[in-house]
Amino acid sequence: MLSEHLLAEMGRLAAQGDLPLHRQLYEALRRAVLDGKLGAGDRLPSSRDLAHDLDLSRNTVVAALGQLTVEGYLVSHVGSGTYVHEHVPQPGVRPRAGQAAPDARLSRRGEALAHQHRARDLEIQPFTPGVADFSAFPIALWQRLQNKHWRSAQPEMLDYNDSGGHGPLRRAVADYLRVFRSVRLDADQVLITSGTQQSLELCAHLLADNGDTVWLEDPAYWGAVKAFTATGLAIHPVPVDDEGMAPSAADEAHPPRLIYVTPSHQYPTGAVMSLARRQQLLACAARCQAWVLEDDYDSEFRFSGPPISSLEGLDTEGRVLYMGTFSKMLYPGLKLGYLVVPKALVAAFKGAHYDLNRPGQMPLQAALAEFIEMGHFASALRRARQTYAERRQKLVDALAPVLHSGQGRIHGAAQGLHLCLRLPACADDRALAQQAAQRGLTVRPLSAYCLQRQDLRGLAIGYGYAAPALIDRYGRQLAELVAQGLGRG
Amino acid sequence: MLSEHLLAEMGRLAAQGDLPLHRQLYEALRRAVLDGKLGAGDRLPSSRDLAHDLDLSRNTVVAALGQLTVEGYLVSHVGSGTYVHEHVPQPGVRPRAGQAAPDARLSRRGEALAHQHRARDLEIQPFTPGVADFSAFPIALWQRLQNKHWRSAQPEMLDYNDSGGHGPLRRAVADYLRVFRSVRLDADQVLITSGTQQSLELCAHLLADNGDTVWLEDPAYWGAVKAFTATGLAIHPVPVDDEGMAPSAADEAHPPRLIYVTPSHQYPTGAVMSLARRQQLLACAARCQAWVLEDDYDSEFRFSGPPISSLEGLDTEGRVLYMGTFSKMLYPGLKLGYLVVPKALVAAFKGAHYDLNRPGQMPLQAALAEFIEMGHFASALRRARQTYAERRQKLVDALAPVLHSGQGRIHGAAQGLHLCLRLPACADDRALAQQAAQRGLTVRPLSAYCLQRQDLRGLAIGYGYAAPALIDRYGRQLAELVAQGLGRG
Repeated sequence: MLSEHLLAEMGRLAAQGDLPLHRQLYEALRRAVLDGKLGAGDRLPSSRDLAHDLDLSRNTVVAALGQLTVEGYLVSHVGSGTYVHEHVPQPGVRPRAGQAAPDARLSRRGEALAHQHRARDLEIQPFTPGVADFSAFPIALWQRLQNKHWRSAQPEMLDYNDSGGHGPLRRAVADYLRVFRSVRLDADQVLITSGTQQSLELCAHLLADNGDTVWLEDPAYWGAVKAFTATGLAIHPVPVDDEGMAPSAADEAHPPRLIYVTPSHQYPTGAVMSLARRQQLLACAARCQAWVLEDDYDSEFRFSGPPISSLEGLDTEGRVLYMGTFSKMLYPGLKLGYLVVPKALVAAFKGAHYDLNRPGQMPLQAALAEFIEMGHFASALRRARQTYAERRQKLVDALAPVLHSGQGRIHGAAQGLHLCLRLPACADDRALAQQAAQRGLTVRPLSAYCLQRQDLRGLAIGYGYAAPALIDRYGRQLAELVAQGLGRG
Repeated sequence: MLSEHLLAEMGRLAAQGDLPLHRQLYEALRRAVLDGKLGAGDRLPSSRDLAHDLDLSRNTVVAALGQLTVEGYLVSHVGSGTYVHEHVPQPGVRPRAGQAAPDARLSRRGEALAHQHRARDLEIQPFTPGVADFSAFPIALWQRLQNKHWRSAQPEMLDYNDSGGHGPLRRAVADYLRVFRSVRLDADQVLITSGTQQSLELCAHLLADNGDTVWLEDPAYWGAVKAFTATGLAIHPVPVDDEGMAPSAADEAHPPRLIYVTPSHQYPTGAVMSLARRQQLLACAARCQAWVLEDDYDSEFRFSGPPISSLEGLDTEGRVLYMGTFSKMLYPGLKLGYLVVPKALVAAFKGAHYDLNRPGQMPLQAALAEFIEMGHFASALRRARQTYAERRQKLVDALAPVLHSGQGRIHGAAQGLHLCLRLPACADDRALAQQAAQRGLTVRPLSAYCLQRQDLRGLAIGYGYAAPALIDRYGRQLAELVAQGLGRG
């Protein structure tokens, strides 16, 4: 009996949530049609009869039938009644919810993105490279600043932002970069983005076409590989040595449209690009008419001496786009970073940033601006440098057996959140990383960052997250494991 | 005299900010080199002499010289002194900061993105289509919920999220969609994104390759045009009629990899896709082995009867990816939306979403989950429907002269935040929009949304943002302007 079926279904729906009666009836009837309880062409009882059988007001029934008629499930013939429409789907061909199409497949770039997908072992445990310790982030202060800006929020603070970011934040970033990073800029050149991935995609979309070549450091930062894969660029790997990216004449046979570099602290090797190399790279970019994307990765966390000046600050032709993030300094989920573009590109970048990304989170941007202006950023930076310098030293001490044996050496500058332990070319660094993983330690094999070259072996070991005592204990375990692994090799 | 120059420069730097002395000297020396005050190969005074001349401690001088040596500006020869390195850049070839490279140009897709760039007249004034009124958003409640989740924030709440979003929010979205939108899904199929743009880019990256065809409604939503342009897809326009997207056999000669539709309330025409057309579209997608991207735009704001069920709910083959946003219901800058993917695609989408976007903002996601669970979302929805229904009616009343003259008619369903006033084919809708702009009214010409077709004239008029009294007053002005414009035509 239809009415019994409908009543049962309505009862089930009522138990699920706060649906009005007419909506319950609508859903029950709709499902009856889709499940084949009511077939194409079937005549429905009159609204009067349905109201009586279901103990509903006639208005309720009329509302439900009306909606189903509007949607095309039912058709009403004046004087003759209401029928199930002949176009309703045939029952029996409906597979279970969420089942994938038989030909479910990703696109080629989708497969590449899924296949390259290597950065997700995010379970935080000792030595995951690139992870900062945000346990000391001053949450109470942060809440206070956020609340202040929420309380006084004008409507535009809740809207999208089309001016490249919150004005005071752009000015605060410009002041910081001018003084501490020797970047030459006006606040107008600063775009607030959701971080380095968004900055890279924006550059790739606006400055390169599908199939254009981008030079990447080899070994490379995975996030950049992903961003350039997604945006359709052809990746040409250029080897990194102790002075950073080292392009040869052979590389110039693959002229780049973009050159992506991490000159302050190359990820993952830790190399700092020398002044001579910086000048060579800029000259090479000029010859190739390429844009240089400077990811000033980890520059904040230099432990000895002031941070090394930016590539942008040396640029004589305005070819450098400079980017950084607040994720490492404050907390990753903040999702705020910055991109500095040459003046001639500001309008195009602002417009595309708005159109592609619809930036928002203005109360958060306002809180961050004030956090910087009040000096909290600078003092967090000082504390963080000290914290990470100590942790790095703890790790170096724990790794002493490997270092003293002459089998491993620490590569790159004393900077950042990780160090690169270089191992002999015969070492199986992937096997070592797997063995470490079995003991609950996340280290990354240097060979896994290599795009083309086969000569590098080592481990990227993060010291950012774990407390010193843990670094000491687990660092010794790691050293033992490496020594054993090399002994076997 | 070098020391006088350095003292002056250091004084200037000191006035700018809180730099330590060794950093002031470092900067002053560095600039002297870069500006040519110190040339390649020049010998510097000894650190003792510099310390004396500048009245600094010798440690300060040694720190600054050491840093410049590390960076390659200076070179130190034991027993002979410190010299400016021969590789330093030549002065005189340094243009002003931020000046663009002579060959500054955007890529072809960059030009396309900049050229199509039409959505930024965001100055909020009466009748901008698609803008909601978020002045009634309960900020105090929102702050309270945010504070609660910040206070109890575990470290993982400050980190990136690699599981597709905050669990309780994904469940709350699934419950909402299941009951109110007849979407069939498990919470595991829900990805929390930063909104529709990010959802679209993710679909385009994972499911289509560069050059693949995407069908778009003609006229079309600009945001989708941008997203597909950026991701390199070939846009094939399919005309929209009163029942939504109407593909013909000729269209199937351009078989799509993706079909993007706004079936609940086509943007901008307001057409609601009929049930028959929905089934045709799904059958067509099956023939072409295409994915359907259902942007359930404006479905929440249906004023008569319940919202029309989703296309996803009719899908018999799991070809539909369903997306929506919280921007219109809460506030745009929130930047939280959702994408529902078939089960077979969940792992690939979660992975790529993490790798490409590094999602964060977990305290905000937690606050939103609770906002929904506590019923605030449902009641905001009820209030908003009533508000917008009234405003729509006010606008319709104000436009009465145009409607009664038979020259204009309102097209599409009584739903959403805007209406589409269709005008005769001879009308110059761009001129009308310009005239309105001169009076401080933002309306958008229907022809500006058309990708290929030439036959549509009309105005998209938003009633979401302005208060009823303003809608009344400015609506009459608009009606007068349209009537005059048509009279002249």
